[in-house]
Amino acid sequence: MRFMSDNAASVHPKVWEALRAADGVDSPYDGDALSQRLDARFSELFGREATVLWVATGTAANCLALATMCPPHGGVVCHREAHIEMDEGGAPGFYLHGAKLLLAGRSDGGDGAKLTSQAIRDVIDPIRDDVHQVQPHAISITQASEYGRVYRPEEIAAISQLARERGLALHMDGARFANATAFLGGSAAEAAGDIDALSFGCVKNGGMSAEAIVFFDPALADVARYRRKRAGHLQSKGRFLAAQLLAMVEDNLWLDNARAANAAAQAIAERGSERLMHPVEANEVFIRLSPDEREMLRGIGYQFYDWGADAARFVASWDSDPGEARALGQAIADL
Amino acid sequence: MRFMSDNAASVHPKVWEALRAADGVDSPYDGDALSQRLDARFSELFGREATVLWVATGTAANCLALATMCPPHGGVVCHREAHIEMDEGGAPGFYLHGAKLLLAGRSDGGDGAKLTSQAIRDVIDPIRDDVHQVQPHAISITQASEYGRVYRPEEIAAISQLARERGLALHMDGARFANATAFLGGSAAEAAGDIDALSFGCVKNGGMSAEAIVFFDPALADVARYRRKRAGHLQSKGRFLAAQLLAMVEDNLWLDNARAANAAAQAIAERGSERLMHPVEANEVFIRLSPDEREMLRGIGYQFYDWGADAARFVASWDSDPGEARALGQAIADL
Amino acid sequence: MRFMSDNAASVHPKVWEALRAADGVDSPYDGDALSQRLDARFSELFGREATVLWVATGTAANCLALATMCPPHGGVVCHREAHIEMDEGGAPGFYLHGAKLLLAGRSDGGDGAKLTSQAIRDVIDPIRDDVHQVQPHAISITQASEYGRVYRPEEIAAISQLARERGLALHMDGARFANATAFLGGSAAEAAGDIDALSFGCVKNGGMSAEAIVFFDPALADVARYRRKRAGHLQSKGRFLAAQLLAMVEDNLWLDNARAANAAAQAIAERGSERLMHPVEANEVFIRLSPDEREMLRGIGYQFYDWGADAARFVASWDSDPGEARALGQAIADL
Amino acid sequence: MRFMSDNAASVHPKVWEALRAADGVDSPYDGDALSQRLDARFSELFGREATVLWVATGTAANCLALATMCPPHGGVVCHREAHIEMDEGGAPGFYLHGAKLLLAGRSDGGDGAKLTSQAIRDVIDPIRDDVHQVQPHAISITQASEYGRVYRPEEIAAISQLARERGLALHMDGARFANATAFLGGSAAEAAGDIDALSFGCVKNGGMSAEAIVFFDPALADVARYRRKRAGHLQSKGRFLAAQLLAMVEDNLWLDNARAANAAAQAIAERGSERLMHPVEANEVFIRLSPDEREMLRGIGYQFYDWGADAARFVASWDSDPGEARALGQAIADL
Repeated sequence: MRFMSDNAASVHPKVWEALRAADGVDSPYDGDALSQRLDARFSELFGREATVLWVATGTAANCLALATMCPPHGGVVCHREAHIEMDEGGAPGFYLHGAKLLLAGRSDGGDGAKLTSQAIRDVIDPIRDDVHQVQPHAISITQASEYGRVYRPEEIAAISQLARERGLALHMDGARFANATAFLGGSAAEAAGDIDALSFGCVKNGGMSAEAIVFFDPALADVARYRRKRAGHLQSKGRFLAAQLLAMVEDNLWLDNARAANAAAQAIAERGSERLMHPVEANEVFIRLSPDEREMLRGIGYQFYDWGADAARFVASWDSDPGEARALGQAIADL
Repeated sequence: MRFMSDNAASVHPKVWEALRAADGVDSPYDGDALSQRLDARFSELFGREATVLWVATGTAANCLALATMCPPHGGVVCHREAHIEMDEGGAPGFYLHGAKLLLAGRSDGGDGAKLTSQAIRDVIDPIRDDVHQVQPHAISITQASEYGRVYRPEEIAAISQLARERGLALHMDGARFANATAFLGGSAAEAAGDIDALSFGCVKNGGMSAEAIVFFDPALADVARYRRKRAGHLQSKGRFLAAQLLAMVEDNLWLDNARAANAAAQAIAERGSERLMHPVEANEVFIRLSPDEREMLRGIGYQFYDWGADAARFVASWDSDPGEARALGQAIADL
Repeated sequence: MRFMSDNAASVHPKVWEALRAADGVDSPYDGDALSQRLDARFSELFGREATVLWVATGTAANCLALATMCPPHGGVVCHREAHIEMDEGGAPGFYLHGAKLLLAGRSDGGDGAKLTSQAIRDVIDPIRDDVHQVQPHAISITQASEYGRVYRPEEIAAISQLARERGLALHMDGARFANATAFLGGSAAEAAGDIDALSFGCVKNGGMSAEAIVFFDPALADVARYRRKRAGHLQSKGRFLAAQLLAMVEDNLWLDNARAANAAAQAIAERGSERLMHPVEANEVFIRLSPDEREMLRGIGYQFYDWGADAARFVASWDSDPGEARALGQAIADL
Repeated sequence: MRFMSDNAASVHPKVWEALRAADGVDSPYDGDALSQRLDARFSELFGREATVLWVATGTAANCLALATMCPPHGGVVCHREAHIEMDEGGAPGFYLHGAKLLLAGRSDGGDGAKLTSQAIRDVIDPIRDDVHQVQPHAISITQASEYGRVYRPEEIAAISQLARERGLALHMDGARFANATAFLGGSAAEAAGDIDALSFGCVKNGGMSAEAIVFFDPALADVARYRRKRAGHLQSKGRFLAAQLLAMVEDNLWLDNARAANAAAQAIAERGSERLMHPVEANEVFIRLSPDEREMLRGIGYQFYDWGADAARFVASWDSDPGEARALGQAIADL
């Protein structure tokens, strides 16, 4: 009964189907018919002109997007618990050639790892406009956040407005964008808001090896094409990445999968609300559990990560068994 | 009848089988059971201790390997027509942080894009040992070469010896290593020789999205692990890359596929030997054809790349139809 | 009456003398007789084998030193208020190719911007030893610190021991190393402790345009030579940089200048001790002053920087007028 | 009797005077009165709006300029014997974050290391406009060239026109711009032509430690300011660099010095014209001399560099003794 992460979940049958259907010879790289369909399909999904590049990982998606927004001597504002700061092995430093992450937000988890326009101002306003300090060029926010919290449209709008005022580009890390969109009601446009680029997650949501960088500014996409090749991320059989992404957005598979994962997370959380560290809005549950309690749950067969000394993180995925999730919720209630 | 490149060929059924068998939940990244088997399997294949990292592309494989061998202020000797110089969009400059490719060999194709120890000496001997000039730290050779030529064991040995004498690391770009090995008789150890790391190709040989970096020096592999993550190449469902590589080396599928491709290339070439620009040793055929002749062949339905003004390149792959290859050979003979 | 910074102070007459004496033709770069004397002279000064490279700025000295200690995928622990983090325009990101500064110490100034071995452990102990997190490779401390605090030999020893235990290199930013050494009694060896490289400041202490990187590990110096040229810091008339450094350490000019600056700082501080934010150990005085009080002092003719809303920073230099410093101290007492 | 290089020549008395006059306290970095005068002074010199940044070396000047013109994934066309390719220790790779030098021109010295618009076309026209090949973003030419050849205004105009047509920025390495300008008759505007930035040399021409980057596009200068600090090239006592540059252009000292150097080169060359490898247009003389002949000249006391097996390079500087130069010319004639 595995609730460690959604990142190693199984691949959805419809994705397998699409992969098989994509075989046979076609043009290499992104010249194939499937890759050529991505722009139109995602433009439709977001209700605005989009240019889409596939890559294999969220780290590559985030860092390629940011590399188009910030020069090597600049900075990117992000939450101090953002994935790009904490868990990407220094990839932003590599892709952005030494540009700096400017860390904002609370360090105690109190903001659920979500930025506010005020938290961003608190970081950029004290920066002297001189060459001795790294100047901000972009903002990166995460939808849903590291703690499974979801930005509401008006929250994104406030950040977006600040970004426009200050001439900063705005990126959204959407490794779990599907879960956030499902939570907000299903509109991709609403869940994204007025941003310049989105890392649209697929691997954690039933895909195998494809993420999309969705650019809403075609000039950024033009740069990203060169940077993708230069980073060794232009796969020659790109049709297999495009196939996964198309399968995902076909018939709303991405939302169905996310809803299943979100529901499982709710099932885990629902009877232990007084123990929750954060409201459960996506597919992650952070819950206070003593070492003994965690040992007990592991004894029954649940797998999950410790979160510091007194808590645990459970992550549901599209293929989580609803019964197992409910039983886990009950087991927590019974502790 | 497509002979444009092997890089977009179809995926071998045994690879598909292995991919399907790899699904189901396992540890993320390279913690899964399949990834854990790679070192042993490739050590066996090469008859020496090997440490193996999967990545999605040959560009990533080459550049990650080289990044462990050469500091940012150093240089890597390679042939002036090597893939890393000509066709990787500047990836070596990115991964090696501005290190320089030191170009060796003939520019007229006369050496088949193969380096000799003498050609390497011609480049490194004139470099003054001072800080004004970029010093060599590594050598990269390509097996088979850009013109489908295969290094003989004694040729590699001579280069390898020079590398040891000068304290240079030695990398082999083996995007078509299988074809070279098949040509040489089937011994991976012999086709590789005494090198420090090999980019072991799989995508062009019936794989979908996996290449192996085979390190024969574990210290280099330790560095590469961090660099792989930092480059966004550590896929979370890494089991699917490991599966492809294991399927390839299982029961010599890699050699069977390469032999099929090589045989098809021979069939294309055999009746037009007087037109050949290079001896055909792997799966590529470079052949002198006038514009009119190329038009004629295209009229019949053959697809291929022009090679300059008066020649064409045909590449066979594991799934090339032997009959089509023979017919193409005949059509060339009939011109 | 200028107490803004020591970084624009005038050049000491003995430095001028040395500069003039250095003219006339000699070998370019660092092949001249003066540059060739540096190793011996600084080895004598520190009582241990030293290899010395001149550069023009402290930023170059710090970042070149660190670039020899930390690979692009690694991290350097420093205080969160260190110059390399706050005021070098992202130079560490440039010189270290995207390596990361791992910030330690208090953010409220309570530690005087000095690190302790405990503060370093607090940062590095939670780093998981996996590829997702940037691993520490070096530590950088500042002697005297950003707040003019001086590390005592036993404090350095504790950090140095931790560094050895964890396999981390240890760098000291000594832009005001002279002031720290003067405070500690005059022994360069004692003020430096067991470190791998020191940025030995000269510009703030009566020099014109030279700083020394003093390497106590010759292997690091060998790398730095290439990196210095590559950074455009190998001046062709290097004799003029060497001349400044030699003049500085001749007859203890560096300590005499530092003692003068330190004494001026004491004179500023001595009657206002209850207002001091930090003990005055070098040549900087941080003192609580209301906006009105600052205006009053400026009205009399004193020039200095505000330090936040309720304080000011005064920096004395070798050429500060002792009378002006005393008068400033009195003026503060009279407020 | 030293004719090895102009790069270690003595400092001109007027530069010394200016240096001394610049002492005394002023604002740090480039906030001082002298630095503030540079834009106006060079705008006047070139007869068009110029923005000027000082740096300590030609390598820094060249690479900072180019870094504003070419993204990390791009390329810069230069002559294969250009200083940035041959003698800057890989600095372009560092400053441009791995961008590539695209080498043009003849390798046999036959073009005097000068580019033509045709030679540039020969390199950029074959580059496929796809992501697999590095795309050109800028051109760098050297005035005077590595072989002391001077671009005529119409030659620069042809290159400049090509640059505009193709959307490429144009940089001029003017380490010996003064010598070229003196040769052409003294107009800086004419010797520079329609370029975007010039590395204006001063160190080789009687300066101590200052070069100017003259930007004719202020947007590039804005970027360069951040990059200069980030490269550790923003000296805190910048007034001493500005002073050197102002002294140079005051009363045409730069041209007087260059004329003296050029005249000395002419004196060396005039009786040995049949031995010259290149016409002498600036202050360098490349002359065919057998090993025995070189030994003989060295026996008399002349110092110079060998140039390959059968030639020598003599470089005159502003302080070359005219009598020594004439005597050297005679000695060569007498061989």
